[in-house]
Amino acid sequence: MTDVATNMRLKLPIACFILQIILIILFGVLVEYDHDTDARLWHSKNHSDYENDFYYRYPSFQDVHVMIFIGFGFLMTFLQRYGFSSVGFNFLIAAFSLQWATLMQGFFHGMHEGKIHIGVLSMINADFCTGSVLISFGAVLGKTSPFQLLVMAIFEVTLFSVNEFVLVTALGARDAGGSMTIHTFGAYFGLMVTRVLYRPNLNKSKHRNSSVYHSDLFAMIGTIYLWMFWPSFNSAITAQGDDQHRTAMNTYYSLAACTLSTYGMSALTAHDGKLDMVHIQNAALAGGVAAGTPSLSEKPVLENKLKIQDTCGVHNLHGMPGVLGAIVGAVTAAVATTDVYGRGMKDVFPDVASGDITASYQGLVQAISLAVTLGMALLGGLIVGFILKLPVFGAPSDSICYEDNVYWEVPGEEDHEEQLTAVHAAEAEKLN
Amino acid sequence: MTDVATNMRLKLPIACFILQIILIILFGVLVEYDHDTDARLWHSKNHSDYENDFYYRYPSFQDVHVMIFIGFGFLMTFLQRYGFSSVGFNFLIAAFSLQWATLMQGFFHGMHEGKIHIGVLSMINADFCTGSVLISFGAVLGKTSPFQLLVMAIFEVTLFSVNEFVLVTALGARDAGGSMTIHTFGAYFGLMVTRVLYRPNLNKSKHRNSSVYHSDLFAMIGTIYLWMFWPSFNSAITAQGDDQHRTAMNTYYSLAACTLSTYGMSALTAHDGKLDMVHIQNAALAGGVAAGTPSLSEKPVLENKLKIQDTCGVHNLHGMPGVLGAIVGAVTAAVATTDVYGRGMKDVFPDVASGDITASYQGLVQAISLAVTLGMALLGGLIVGFILKLPVFGAPSDSICYEDNVYWEVPGEEDHEEQLTAVHAAEAEKLN
Amino acid sequence: MTDVATNMRLKLPIACFILQIILIILFGVLVEYDHDTDARLWHSKNHSDYENDFYYRYPSFQDVHVMIFIGFGFLMTFLQRYGFSSVGFNFLIAAFSLQWATLMQGFFHGMHEGKIHIGVLSMINADFCTGSVLISFGAVLGKTSPFQLLVMAIFEVTLFSVNEFVLVTALGARDAGGSMTIHTFGAYFGLMVTRVLYRPNLNKSKHRNSSVYHSDLFAMIGTIYLWMFWPSFNSAITAQGDDQHRTAMNTYYSLAACTLSTYGMSALTAHDGKLDMVHIQNAALAGGVAAGTPSLSEKPVLENKLKIQDTCGVHNLHGMPGVLGAIVGAVTAAVATTDVYGRGMKDVFPDVASGDITASYQGLVQAISLAVTLGMALLGGLIVGFILKLPVFGAPSDSICYEDNVYWEVPGEEDHEEQLTAVHAAEAEKLN
Repeated sequence: MTDVATNMRLKLPIACFILQIILIILFGVLVEYDHDTDARLWHSKNHSDYENDFYYRYPSFQDVHVMIFIGFGFLMTFLQRYGFSSVGFNFLIAAFSLQWATLMQGFFHGMHEGKIHIGVLSMINADFCTGSVLISFGAVLGKTSPFQLLVMAIFEVTLFSVNEFVLVTALGARDAGGSMTIHTFGAYFGLMVTRVLYRPNLNKSKHRNSSVYHSDLFAMIGTIYLWMFWPSFNSAITAQGDDQHRTAMNTYYSLAACTLSTYGMSALTAHDGKLDMVHIQNAALAGGVAAGTPSLSEKPVLENKLKIQDTCGVHNLHGMPGVLGAIVGAVTAAVATTDVYGRGMKDVFPDVASGDITASYQGLVQAISLAVTLGMALLGGLIVGFILKLPVFGAPSDSICYEDNVYWEVPGEEDHEEQLTAVHAAEAEKLN
Repeated sequence: MTDVATNMRLKLPIACFILQIILIILFGVLVEYDHDTDARLWHSKNHSDYENDFYYRYPSFQDVHVMIFIGFGFLMTFLQRYGFSSVGFNFLIAAFSLQWATLMQGFFHGMHEGKIHIGVLSMINADFCTGSVLISFGAVLGKTSPFQLLVMAIFEVTLFSVNEFVLVTALGARDAGGSMTIHTFGAYFGLMVTRVLYRPNLNKSKHRNSSVYHSDLFAMIGTIYLWMFWPSFNSAITAQGDDQHRTAMNTYYSLAACTLSTYGMSALTAHDGKLDMVHIQNAALAGGVAAGTPSLSEKPVLENKLKIQDTCGVHNLHGMPGVLGAIVGAVTAAVATTDVYGRGMKDVFPDVASGDITASYQGLVQAISLAVTLGMALLGGLIVGFILKLPVFGAPSDSICYEDNVYWEVPGEEDHEEQLTAVHAAEAEKLN
Repeated sequence: MTDVATNMRLKLPIACFILQIILIILFGVLVEYDHDTDARLWHSKNHSDYENDFYYRYPSFQDVHVMIFIGFGFLMTFLQRYGFSSVGFNFLIAAFSLQWATLMQGFFHGMHEGKIHIGVLSMINADFCTGSVLISFGAVLGKTSPFQLLVMAIFEVTLFSVNEFVLVTALGARDAGGSMTIHTFGAYFGLMVTRVLYRPNLNKSKHRNSSVYHSDLFAMIGTIYLWMFWPSFNSAITAQGDDQHRTAMNTYYSLAACTLSTYGMSALTAHDGKLDMVHIQNAALAGGVAAGTPSLSEKPVLENKLKIQDTCGVHNLHGMPGVLGAIVGAVTAAVATTDVYGRGMKDVFPDVASGDITASYQGLVQAISLAVTLGMALLGGLIVGFILKLPVFGAPSDSICYEDNVYWEVPGEEDHEEQLTAVHAAEAEKLN
């Protein structure tokens, strides 16, 4: 299955090395330790070492980190012959994206005398941005080369940071849990890319676009990790104290409620009243009853009518829930009062608390932010999709999609081969 | 393998939706944020955000959460054709139980002006109660429908909370690590349920009641996670400071000692002096040398003499160690002195420290608590077992136990099928 | 495949029980709770429970713990028929080593009135020492009995503690991240052991010394966990505050940079421009661009010229990177100034900060420490290797290396067997 077009011998090394060299130079020139990581700055003030941000953010960071590398990586191993690529490409583009995101977000979040300050918060934010890229990866899973994925990541991280800047800094929107910036943006960006990369003859690879027993079990590792650590994801960068505590807890109970509903919905809609593991994987993650359940079987509609070949179902998993979360967020903002939040109001909606704007204005800002996000994701995905169509990037042909063997040295299944050879030999003997 | 009796098309959705609607209503009516999660309450006092309970409990909570969903879920994947059900039913009943436990425990732990207060401690407690249900799940693994499991969970969570109330609040017993409330209760409840559900013709499914190479490796993921995070489990809700620290550390060293002994015992008792992975999985978790080792091969006795078909060996894994832990706890309590504990005595045995009761009286309380727990578990299991016998719950028949295909859409093993088809074709060709 | 020589029926139980009894006695006689775990000591002072070391170390400890048991254990499951042994022997020798390391390190780190004090720091240190033993295990993977591994662990833990004492206490070297004490020591000790145990006829087991598709996916679980938690590993025992924060962050970005370079290097050097999962597994962990990349394909050189059969590639994975890290550390120390570190200097190089020694002298100390480590590792490995050659330890013969079946009860692959039997029956029918 060696193919000149998909050969990465020179393309991938050149892309990796050039990108990494640029990253190292930019880090050297632009990046500095922040107050809590710089030895001189930290010791110049009179505080206890226990007050270092590390102790109040790092455990959440590590949970998020596990979601990015184990959660997303293994969630996508459900395809029968795409486990190496799912975990391996996830690893590659995440390792690139988190570095690039540190620079882009640092630039847009505000430089300090020409320098980007880094600490545990920038690490969490970089992982968040990476999550958005991995959502898009899910949409194009099995149909792209690692080179294409790296190029997609370059553009998507950049656009993500611009969008985040517009929403949070320019418009003053709140986006706890990343409904808009991460889920909505990542999903619709990826869906537009896969729309542009539409393959009319993809059914040539159809027999590999499904799971086998063990691949679904590997995928459950990813699913469960994403599910378990979602409370940490949603609360990782919220204000310290009650905010972080409350956000983690609300996520915990919402997810549990959503899971029960998903099982009911799966048995109701699936074949013969049996549960479907793909429903469980998708909807348990969709993060809310309203979001997760109605979208269970819209995948054929997307593919046949809209020509969107969404391998991993990111529309159900992140797109719809993201949009719904954003709408709920806008409504909640519009009706927020100090009666409910007390002095905590200033942590959740600081501009409303200070009296600078009204609650309904905050609601409007949230709604505008959703529209901006959708616009940037779709437009960005459109342009990047066309860029990725260039033959130089080495995409696989229609008949070799969803196949590790194209980009990976794949070991044989010795065991079975041996057994089959034994059967073969036994039969041959009988014939003589 | 479609079967009218086991069809869940209507039963499971109805059960899930009704339960979830009831849960949402009860949460809406009864549940309130506690002091550390409520924005108004938290900000009404003058303390640092760093003092929020979240930072001193949440990392332990996440470890416990991983034990519940990855640990228990994957531990039970050792059966060759029951991986989907092990992980998937574990997921379903855990998601239900943690919500129901929050309400039940909140009710019995003491309402605040008619409201249940929730925060990270209630999350940990809900996960603990869920652990007890999952222990019982292990005993009936492979022989029950998801509907039966949900019904079992409703009753077990309720009884668990009553038992916990009687022990901790009414009697004043100490139960660090949950020897009695979690392990003993969960194990004997489940064993009694499986006794009532005894299937004389279960040997029809005997060929599936064993592991294969890869299923044992998946099970090792669960085993190791349970083992690693046991220190967090035992220390998650103990008093802060030295107590929590000491409990985690004692568990760490006890488990290591137990593991070494288990390997010795396994090589000594198993076939041909080889190690048996099932021994390692069970005994390494049994939590103490005394508890783990002597019970290695009593499973046939349970099944043949007592008609208890204990799929996952929960008697060895949780029942015996739980009882032994409780007895050791009673003896320790009876001989506790202020010489040993100093001012820390009030964290461990507050009533003894205050002089209200003597140490030997505390020991008696512990012993009575064990008896109460055994009584409630066995009686509860008896009643619930008979309820679960009703045909409406859709249990699998004797010949289709330990089989995912009954309740799940199971993908083919395409790879092997293709290979086999190829062999087939080659043979056919040769014949012509 | 039962064999008198490799039968562990008596050898392993005797070794395990005697070792565990000795450990329990020594713990009983020598070990005491430290200030933060002892109820009396902790409550004798007037501090907040929030200041207990537990809250600032335990989350990092648990990450390290996962690296030791899941990371190392599953990393080595890449061999097609050695998954039980990889995870299972890893579990056994880690459970022994962490107990023995607590005693040895406690002895060398300084007794308190004849007693070893334990707390979360001793737990982390014990896990570190265990990591070193597991690195050596990687070099001899597949060619040793569990009895041999236990004996190796006894000596290696002891020597590790002596070496650590000489470096850190006697010479005053700094070894953050354990470049010298853990990685360099563990790698060269193991390499020398495998050199002494050289098997000229190992090619008899060659067909099993390779991976299959699923075994590589299991190995990726280990790889990714080691990668993700490396920041916690490197920062777990550094000084609290900015130090710990900075170390974790630096590791995070270094690893990401290294990963990108590794992918480039793998595509450049591997067959047909495809990525090689073994490269990704090894080099992504090597912890630095300089260290990880040039060593990609030196394994044949080691084996053919130096007769070092390094199963898991620990020379690339830990040896070279460890030495390079140590050299970089020596250079960094020699040029450290208060301008860069400010008042934090006293945390990083206390002797330089206090003016007792110059920075260049510190650099010399680091260089000497590296030489001492290499010397002790090679000499120790030489002696231990010859001890392990004694036939009593039950090593497998050349033709049954890399095979679980030698020391484990291995279940059949029922599924495939059934399918094959079915094919067989179908063919037979056709013939008649």
